[in-house]
Amino acid sequence: MKIDGTPYRSVWVDSLDGWSVHILDQTKLPWAVDILRLTEVTQAAHAICSMQVRGAPLIGAVAAYGLALALREDASDAAMERDGAMLRETRPTAVNLAWAIDRMLAALRCVTAAERVSAAYAEAGRIADEDVAQCEAIGRHGLPLIQEIAARKSGRVNLLTHCNAGWLATVDWGTALAPIYMAHDAGIDLHVWVDETRPRNQGAFLTAFELGKHGVAHTVIADNAGGHLMQHGEVDLVIVGTDRVTRTGDVANKIGTYLKALAAHDNNVPFWVALPSTTIDWTVSDGVREIPIEERAATEVTTIAGRALDGSVATVRLVPTSSAAANPAFDVTPARLVTGLITERGRCAATAAGLLGLFPERG
Amino acid sequence: MKIDGTPYRSVWVDSLDGWSVHILDQTKLPWAVDILRLTEVTQAAHAICSMQVRGAPLIGAVAAYGLALALREDASDAAMERDGAMLRETRPTAVNLAWAIDRMLAALRCVTAAERVSAAYAEAGRIADEDVAQCEAIGRHGLPLIQEIAARKSGRVNLLTHCNAGWLATVDWGTALAPIYMAHDAGIDLHVWVDETRPRNQGAFLTAFELGKHGVAHTVIADNAGGHLMQHGEVDLVIVGTDRVTRTGDVANKIGTYLKALAAHDNNVPFWVALPSTTIDWTVSDGVREIPIEERAATEVTTIAGRALDGSVATVRLVPTSSAAANPAFDVTPARLVTGLITERGRCAATAAGLLGLFPERG
Repeated sequence: MKIDGTPYRSVWVDSLDGWSVHILDQTKLPWAVDILRLTEVTQAAHAICSMQVRGAPLIGAVAAYGLALALREDASDAAMERDGAMLRETRPTAVNLAWAIDRMLAALRCVTAAERVSAAYAEAGRIADEDVAQCEAIGRHGLPLIQEIAARKSGRVNLLTHCNAGWLATVDWGTALAPIYMAHDAGIDLHVWVDETRPRNQGAFLTAFELGKHGVAHTVIADNAGGHLMQHGEVDLVIVGTDRVTRTGDVANKIGTYLKALAAHDNNVPFWVALPSTTIDWTVSDGVREIPIEERAATEVTTIAGRALDGSVATVRLVPTSSAAANPAFDVTPARLVTGLITERGRCAATAAGLLGLFPERG
Repeated sequence: MKIDGTPYRSVWVDSLDGWSVHILDQTKLPWAVDILRLTEVTQAAHAICSMQVRGAPLIGAVAAYGLALALREDASDAAMERDGAMLRETRPTAVNLAWAIDRMLAALRCVTAAERVSAAYAEAGRIADEDVAQCEAIGRHGLPLIQEIAARKSGRVNLLTHCNAGWLATVDWGTALAPIYMAHDAGIDLHVWVDETRPRNQGAFLTAFELGKHGVAHTVIADNAGGHLMQHGEVDLVIVGTDRVTRTGDVANKIGTYLKALAAHDNNVPFWVALPSTTIDWTVSDGVREIPIEERAATEVTTIAGRALDGSVATVRLVPTSSAAANPAFDVTPARLVTGLITERGRCAATAAGLLGLFPERG
């Protein structure tokens, strides 16, 4: 999507040298747009583990390009396996990272060392392009939800989203934000309520940045505000992303998503979840009971980094030093609260039958 | 209650000069315990509208003392009515601000100008003392809810509260926290989940401070986390305060309360609201439609003050400069989500019949 009129992806190969890899340093957003040039695999690994890039699809693409950078130094079998294993360990819990590395290695093992570098760039490019195509398809399938509201309503369409499921979390378009970008680009008058999304503030830091740079009208709100807005007819549609969806349609996503789903349900506001099908965990039936919830560092709750008056980024403490804090990072929204799912194959009900209708090969 | 072993109220008249009014500057908590001396009505009005004092009962008491300060300057009928009207306007949502001013004016209108100052201090003192007695009674009536859980459960009782309805929001004891302090003092093993309470962070700043100073075990969480904790049996009871309760039991309270009530309802967790009866607005039947919700400054969302590494209190920005923010300060929880009300006269259902059972004189 665009930053001040210029189209970007979240990872791309330098158009002049044809091999160095560029990323946006997301730890600097929204205060600075720092483009990093990666020339060595260790830089790619650092970008992943330090969260300069985040979001499962983007991590996979950067790891794939990282392996291509590694092969420029040493394209031997031993080096390729070693560097692939190293990259796979940069965020051990990210399933998509292992998937991308495994796919790269499978494609490259039967290629001669002499041809491996160009083959690696080609495969990494396919991984990136496929992610873009998937997100674009999610956008196409979600767009009618917004068009229908625009058609029956006078005035702008008000959407609400939680956390960041935009182009910065993927290679382009995003998942939850893809339909919103498409509707905006199609000229639909819309406005997005952006949940701040404590404790890491991905809404205030990333979603607000993305939408603002692309020219989409939006307003940041405290995570507490969404229910009130829904009670008063200020939200026409909620769209969020997800980290994992069960085969029955339960949705694990950033902590607080469940509360917004409850409010949407209580106020008859449609609550949709956008996802690439790689997010579906076909082995899990009961999300609340079966999906383990990561407990992250208490310092994410007790402190926050923001921009100080002098322009520097400063960390301040928000909780008395003698108080403990807890930080469950995700929650699970039961399928009964989810109006439907938007996938790259189309929309479906958040039920086992709905998902099998779109993915019959899983039956 | 106590701070570092010293008993405090949240507003008191200077014991030496007998007329100046002291408050704790709650905008400085938890980083500093700053006591402000108010000598003019404009300072009292400023203390209310800048939220140096907040919480409906405390606002009422400070407004009452503010009128006493005004009368020291000019005790004429015209000045008294003018200053009373000015004080009444300092916060729109707090019904007992108007109640306190009306009570003061009713008591003072038939007093000669010469006797008004001492009469005003006496009446303001009665308002403060009655609030303390009221909160103590709320604590007594709420205590059995916690005792019953402790009796049937092994291990500690887990409570959750939103915002600050502790002694800092009243003159002493608090409303929602009064039963918790009493249960703690009675030796019940309990623990309180403290919602951070964005955007003003009264939970992290004030409730955590209060509980910590009194020795009550507690853990600060992001506002997003409560639903997840309830899904997993980590919350036995929710108790919150309120700024206004309708005659039918709808509850206006800090933004986000409604979301917690929805989660409590969805997980069969009792959701109780503690209030002095002055908080009841007997003229309003439909809280969602009829209670005006104060929209506060966007800067409360876009910036936050916390303690920097060097110990100073620093404000940092949390939202891109080009993004707008909205800040509805309260929401309304429909009575159907409220298990019951705890008042100074006892507990009742959150219904018109329930309230009339405790307050038959309103029938």
